[in-house]
Amino acid sequence: MGAILGRVEAALTRLLPPAEAVPARLHEAMRYATLEGGKRVRPLLCFAAGELTGAAPERLEIAAAAVEMMHAYSLVHDDMPCMDNDLLRRGKPTVHVEYDQATALLVGDALQALAFQLLAEQQVARDAPTQLEMVKALAVAAGSRGMAGGQAIDLQSIGKTLSLPELELMHILKTGALIRAAVALGAQCGRPLGGEQAERLDRYAKCVGLAFQVVDDVLDCEASSATLGKTAGKDARRGKPTYVSVMGLANARELAEELRGEAHAALEGFGEPALRLRQLADFIVLRKF
Amino acid sequence: MGAILGRVEAALTRLLPPAEAVPARLHEAMRYATLEGGKRVRPLLCFAAGELTGAAPERLEIAAAAVEMMHAYSLVHDDMPCMDNDLLRRGKPTVHVEYDQATALLVGDALQALAFQLLAEQQVARDAPTQLEMVKALAVAAGSRGMAGGQAIDLQSIGKTLSLPELELMHILKTGALIRAAVALGAQCGRPLGGEQAERLDRYAKCVGLAFQVVDDVLDCEASSATLGKTAGKDARRGKPTYVSVMGLANARELAEELRGEAHAALEGFGEPALRLRQLADFIVLRKF
Repeated sequence: MGAILGRVEAALTRLLPPAEAVPARLHEAMRYATLEGGKRVRPLLCFAAGELTGAAPERLEIAAAAVEMMHAYSLVHDDMPCMDNDLLRRGKPTVHVEYDQATALLVGDALQALAFQLLAEQQVARDAPTQLEMVKALAVAAGSRGMAGGQAIDLQSIGKTLSLPELELMHILKTGALIRAAVALGAQCGRPLGGEQAERLDRYAKCVGLAFQVVDDVLDCEASSATLGKTAGKDARRGKPTYVSVMGLANARELAEELRGEAHAALEGFGEPALRLRQLADFIVLRKF
Repeated sequence: MGAILGRVEAALTRLLPPAEAVPARLHEAMRYATLEGGKRVRPLLCFAAGELTGAAPERLEIAAAAVEMMHAYSLVHDDMPCMDNDLLRRGKPTVHVEYDQATALLVGDALQALAFQLLAEQQVARDAPTQLEMVKALAVAAGSRGMAGGQAIDLQSIGKTLSLPELELMHILKTGALIRAAVALGAQCGRPLGGEQAERLDRYAKCVGLAFQVVDDVLDCEASSATLGKTAGKDARRGKPTYVSVMGLANARELAEELRGEAHAALEGFGEPALRLRQLADFIVLRKF
């Protein structure tokens, strides 16, 4: 995975506006928010899905960069004082702390626009209709029925008791939608998948997306801020419902394990080209940070 | 123009998520931010440019709605306390006042995503490559070298003395870029324009974009909040450089008039189909609100 991570970092470094270009402070902050940090789970999933369809790395790195920029923007906005008010992210001061709130707001806005620009201007798929589908998939994943909608539900849920289905809906939107888009976009960089195969791949993506959040909640409960690179235990302290608060630590761990099994099951029949997708399902559930 | 305004309002009403769909508070606020307000200058420009290329109204209303959603998102974010801290917009309380700051942040984020979704999922042009170009044009206009970049320069300029070229660069990015995109997208909904024609249309768009801002500054200096539907005189009070502060009221009025002349000159040779574009150049410069 090291080679892919290096490739993604190089692509982000190249595709973000240069720090010295006007307006320099904004561009510097966009790079600060995106480069050198994060587990890069979405880009890794994007590349892994591309292996199923024989996608060229030159295409995958663009799609992966677009998804990662979208993710980075969401973190910058979520960390702002009017949202989660977080001071630490990826082991560094958050953007509104390092720069200021207005810059953080604009960094997020500009990163979102840049993600769509990349999918429209670079050749990321075999034809223009497929690229339009990729733009649409990313837009739906980011919008009010995806990531932004999940964040809205998250904010409304503070101090409330959510049922397990309600909690699941929130996370399917808040983190699941973009993870599913990462997998779908990666596959779309290559040969078309048959309907049944695309459906199985999407089932895999749903499972790892949910597992990712369950494990996040478990780690947030167990780990220290130093290991996480972000403020630990904050959701519980803020009265935000988590998988641990709703079902208990042991059950949450078990759920993550079940989702890992379902993700593997969804990949049956894909054989060797799905090796990396399997490894990532394992990494997402077994990680310690 | 009344018929086009009615058509745009109906399209926005239909294309925004229903207010009762989950998450309802977010969707309600997205509609609050976008519907029933504003002069709709960008949609009108979009339709007028479409008349040059014989574009179908069914396509133009989608492109116009996408541009207007992008504009509405920028107003919601610009009005937030960490930016311009405005309480009044289009004669109503701003979104963060009527709802809350977190909702305002998410409304903007989700409106931007929806604008791109519309251009990707609806048939707005003759073929997919043209639609991809439209997505790219809107993304560049919205991003760090367009609207968001202009806003960043605007914030940095508070309390500073800008030269006229610096002020012009800021406005070319902050308001000019999206106005140019509105004109370009409208034309792209129809027959392809020749290179020279496209270049002349873009010159027109640059002139009206700049004129729009010059007139805004003149009105901001002269008018009352009741007429404007937003806080009047705020830029000057905040120490923001304006055309009036940099060149004086009489010169600013004269510049607007010059730009109107240049806009008309750029349209020479287009004949009858450019009638509405001419009317809009007049409206933008001669308006009193």
